[in-house]
Amino acid sequence: MYQEKNIGIREVTFGSNVIIMQPCNLYECELGDDVFVGPFVEIQQGVVIGDRTKVQSHSFVCELVTIGDDCFIGHGVMFINDTFSEGGPAGGDRMKWKATRIGNHVSIGSNVTILPVQIADRVVIGAGSVVTKDISEAGVYAGNPAKKIRDL
Amino acid sequence: MYQEKNIGIREVTFGSNVIIMQPCNLYECELGDDVFVGPFVEIQQGVVIGDRTKVQSHSFVCELVTIGDDCFIGHGVMFINDTFSEGGPAGGDRMKWKATRIGNHVSIGSNVTILPVQIADRVVIGAGSVVTKDISEAGVYAGNPAKKIRDL
Amino acid sequence: MYQEKNIGIREVTFGSNVIIMQPCNLYECELGDDVFVGPFVEIQQGVVIGDRTKVQSHSFVCELVTIGDDCFIGHGVMFINDTFSEGGPAGGDRMKWKATRIGNHVSIGSNVTILPVQIADRVVIGAGSVVTKDISEAGVYAGNPAKKIRDL
Repeated sequence: MYQEKNIGIREVTFGSNVIIMQPCNLYECELGDDVFVGPFVEIQQGVVIGDRTKVQSHSFVCELVTIGDDCFIGHGVMFINDTFSEGGPAGGDRMKWKATRIGNHVSIGSNVTILPVQIADRVVIGAGSVVTKDISEAGVYAGNPAKKIRDL
Repeated sequence: MYQEKNIGIREVTFGSNVIIMQPCNLYECELGDDVFVGPFVEIQQGVVIGDRTKVQSHSFVCELVTIGDDCFIGHGVMFINDTFSEGGPAGGDRMKWKATRIGNHVSIGSNVTILPVQIADRVVIGAGSVVTKDISEAGVYAGNPAKKIRDL
Repeated sequence: MYQEKNIGIREVTFGSNVIIMQPCNLYECELGDDVFVGPFVEIQQGVVIGDRTKVQSHSFVCELVTIGDDCFIGHGVMFINDTFSEGGPAGGDRMKWKATRIGNHVSIGSNVTILPVQIADRVVIGAGSVVTKDISEAGVYAGNPAKKIRDL
């Protein structure tokens, strides 16, 4: 016995000229002007995405994530709000979740994993990286864990 | 000339209170009570998933994988049954595939890749890791290849 | 205000006996004989995929990628044509994009990320790797960045 849910696009707040590729799973989030969302993307409730930001195919943007203007979220990028801090998933206990805030003009490469962090403006994250710590300085970061590899 | 197949949910055995998000591609597998399956998930034939286990969005669970109770499979997790042991894919030759068995209370972070292995109970795998060897002891593991980083 | 696009399969050139799993997002590309495309796959315009090659679930094959015959593209593999070479995405400026050419009999493991490179015939890329440089010699490569780990 099972229940099947097909959300698609539900209670999303849109700016102007937003383009959404289907299939998607977007709910109770806020997308700014000229945002692009590729296919096979999930964006959860409470997420805010700034103007002209693109979220490419196969990416997952979870609750408690805020993304600025003019950002590029590559393909297969996974955001995380639960760090299993007590040895396992927090489940429904949102008090144990942590937020992520991405600045403006941030470009995140494909297959990147983003633990709950703050990322400053004008940052590039190389493809395949795992971001485990806050990034407070503009520049290019890469690796697992991601470290600064050069200035922009 | 091509043939298009749309499986969706086909010949799946469900426990009680299972929730499945669409779109999905699930066939000839067995899901226990209170299992949750996120959107954009494929679960192949013969897979058995225990009670209260959650399989999050964008994950792929292949043939020959068994997952215990109370597990959390993060977003974008890829299981593997073919290690290209003879320099390339085994193709349809299942004799060359290898099985994966995940214990109970195992939490696997997002974008993790799981080669064919056995994982004991009460294990946490950090996001972005690549698990290449059996894990026989409870604890927290991370990296590529994944190594124990601390006790639970 | 938003525009929703549902491409599915549009203006694709097919060889014989191609199998496509839905849902997919394939447009203006060319697939050879006996090609298999798994679910949740995007293949963009101009891509050419050779005979008997399989593209598994959750993979993304971008513009300017050419894949030979008898290849295996694992699950969650992401190709890239924009290296953010000037500190951010090239946007619509295709002059800044770079091409990828994959030879014949190349097997790419799951969750691999492929920067714009040339890969020779008879190469295996281990799961979870990040390929950042050309591979001109047959063999098995793995890691981030991917390095040769043994002969085939």
